[in-house]
Amino acid sequence: MVSRPDGNRKELLFTPLTVTERTLMKFVLIPDSFKGTLSSTQICAICHEKIKARFPGAEIVSVPVADGGEGSVDAFLTAVGGTRETVTVKGPYFEDMPASYGLIDNGQTAVIEMAACAGLPLVENRKNPLMTTTYGVGQLILAAAQKGVQKIILGLGGSATNDGGCGAAAAAGIRFYDKNGKDFVPTGGTLCDIAGIDFSGMSPLLKDIEMIAMCDIDNPMYGPAGASFVFGPQKGADFRMVEELDFGVHHLSDVLARETGNDISRIPGTGAAGAMGAGMIAFFHARLQMGIQTVLDTVKFDDLIRDADYIITGEGKLDSQSLRGKVVIGIAQRAARQQKPVIAIVGGAEDAEIQSAYEMGVTAVFPINRLPQDFSVSRQYSAENLGYTVDSILRLLQAAT
Amino acid sequence: MVSRPDGNRKELLFTPLTVTERTLMKFVLIPDSFKGTLSSTQICAICHEKIKARFPGAEIVSVPVADGGEGSVDAFLTAVGGTRETVTVKGPYFEDMPASYGLIDNGQTAVIEMAACAGLPLVENRKNPLMTTTYGVGQLILAAAQKGVQKIILGLGGSATNDGGCGAAAAAGIRFYDKNGKDFVPTGGTLCDIAGIDFSGMSPLLKDIEMIAMCDIDNPMYGPAGASFVFGPQKGADFRMVEELDFGVHHLSDVLARETGNDISRIPGTGAAGAMGAGMIAFFHARLQMGIQTVLDTVKFDDLIRDADYIITGEGKLDSQSLRGKVVIGIAQRAARQQKPVIAIVGGAEDAEIQSAYEMGVTAVFPINRLPQDFSVSRQYSAENLGYTVDSILRLLQAAT
Repeated sequence: MVSRPDGNRKELLFTPLTVTERTLMKFVLIPDSFKGTLSSTQICAICHEKIKARFPGAEIVSVPVADGGEGSVDAFLTAVGGTRETVTVKGPYFEDMPASYGLIDNGQTAVIEMAACAGLPLVENRKNPLMTTTYGVGQLILAAAQKGVQKIILGLGGSATNDGGCGAAAAAGIRFYDKNGKDFVPTGGTLCDIAGIDFSGMSPLLKDIEMIAMCDIDNPMYGPAGASFVFGPQKGADFRMVEELDFGVHHLSDVLARETGNDISRIPGTGAAGAMGAGMIAFFHARLQMGIQTVLDTVKFDDLIRDADYIITGEGKLDSQSLRGKVVIGIAQRAARQQKPVIAIVGGAEDAEIQSAYEMGVTAVFPINRLPQDFSVSRQYSAENLGYTVDSILRLLQAAT
Repeated sequence: MVSRPDGNRKELLFTPLTVTERTLMKFVLIPDSFKGTLSSTQICAICHEKIKARFPGAEIVSVPVADGGEGSVDAFLTAVGGTRETVTVKGPYFEDMPASYGLIDNGQTAVIEMAACAGLPLVENRKNPLMTTTYGVGQLILAAAQKGVQKIILGLGGSATNDGGCGAAAAAGIRFYDKNGKDFVPTGGTLCDIAGIDFSGMSPLLKDIEMIAMCDIDNPMYGPAGASFVFGPQKGADFRMVEELDFGVHHLSDVLARETGNDISRIPGTGAAGAMGAGMIAFFHARLQMGIQTVLDTVKFDDLIRDADYIITGEGKLDSQSLRGKVVIGIAQRAARQQKPVIAIVGGAEDAEIQSAYEMGVTAVFPINRLPQDFSVSRQYSAENLGYTVDSILRLLQAAT
């Protein structure tokens, strides 16, 4: 007999079976990359193989964590399935090139890496952030919009550009004018020439699309911690060029503040990807979001773990210094709500961070260092060391359950 | 109803309760030392503290593994309880000194470290294996025999002597003669003077006592791999002295072979502790036995683990090269017979050895290296790294059970 809100009572003829009896284990694998040694996808593959060997019937869900950089589209496609669409867009030097993005969530969501057409690997020996553009990124965004998506996730990372997203904005219909009223597509070297911006030409296709920019760094637009000073050198800028780039981004910030009434320059992450972070906010009304939160939302993590026995995550180093530490913590916080055990496998862990990890919901932290070796030596054994660590954990679980 | 061998049937009125229900966990801690960083006793203490914190009600049995060297008596006393007896005996240079041994097993077994009165730390700045004696060790053996023990366990290890156990034999009543028929107590430098041995004066007290010499090395009496060449230098011998010592041990071996009809010189372990291994066999009819087997027998390991949930062992390095590796393997083999999980916590593990360990019955191997650091750096963090590792394992067990 159950009481109903209306006060009547009703026989329950069948006890609803809310919990399905499962004799098989379910593992959710959701590791960050081990920076410099193993990608998140490789880690998932190693864990998958070891679990299959010890628990042949186990259900295994692999969610390689995308950080917005190269491989992010693949990571999402691996995690939730989907298709890869290829279109022709402008490359870093306005040359035509094929670039692809991912369609997931039954075509309702697009995942784009800006590295696909504005990435450093595309410019190898001709790096010049004064000249490179994010124009193609805007074209990819438009292409996805034309497919009818409701949401676009743009990964910021690995860019060869410093144009504050003006190239992408131009591709989407926003016009930039110089002091003579002549319109142009600004690049890193010509941001300082922007005298006015006309937002009115923005493609109406983009109006109702939710835009998310994945970004794991918190640099502001300009200044010593800004886009140009911190990331300019790896894009080929010498000190003089860095100053020139920083001046341009600063100028863009001033113009944007004047035109929109908002100074966004100090928002953490606006300095990401040559100030593409700022451009995504100002031109595309995007939200900047940590990669891990985006992944957790996209894969519907809370549902995914509901019947999971163990969640295995990890990262290169459990370290307070690195914002990337938020992968393990981000996962642990969600898992804690459902009291699911989270096993973190790491390349290394500072002791204070192990304590914090435990407080944040991590169940156990296992470093993979099989021998007392310096990283310069052990890095070449990362894959096998990880394999042994996973196997030991599984063997222990096997004995304990 | 049960069928009986006689064909009749008989009602079983009570189901015999063979398995006692236990809600609390039982851990058996039986680690080897981490050579150069942590003693077995320290490791037990760290594990004990961590287990108490996670499983306050758990039963914990600590068995620090004695290897025969310094601390072996303490290890046995910690493991099974008992008393420490102190007597006055001869030190390394025949000086009177207090030395103690342990009485365990309700006084039926004595545990003696030869280091107690013939150890290297006693001679610090006056090392001279030509002159030092094991006479006091024989006195300790006699003292224990006078207490009425049925078994004596002698730990070989850390000795300052190279007398082939002749000093101990002399203390027990065996007489050594030179070519002039004069009796004397041979030391490392005078072994070559032994012309004859009279075994008849051996104390009758020792006749029915089971003698075990704990010994984890397999060196023969003499030669390049023998007592003098391998261990002489650390006892203060230069190359010339090493040759002199080796000549003496070789001579002792020849005399023993002639007098007893047995050449024991190639038996592995006879070269232990300045050929004390040989002396224990020839004069005291002892058995040489690995430390771990002696410990397992003495603590009645098979009974100890019968109701245990987890056995935690470990060693500095899981390594095929080191005979000490037999601690983990020795434990695993016994535990496997009762299908008890064995968790090995190690300072390092070669990959081939992890596989063999698993094949031999080890459940899981966890290295303690929290960070990728060379041993020269990480060795100072051994205690805290061990603590974190144990804690992670316990946290995982807590989640799994």
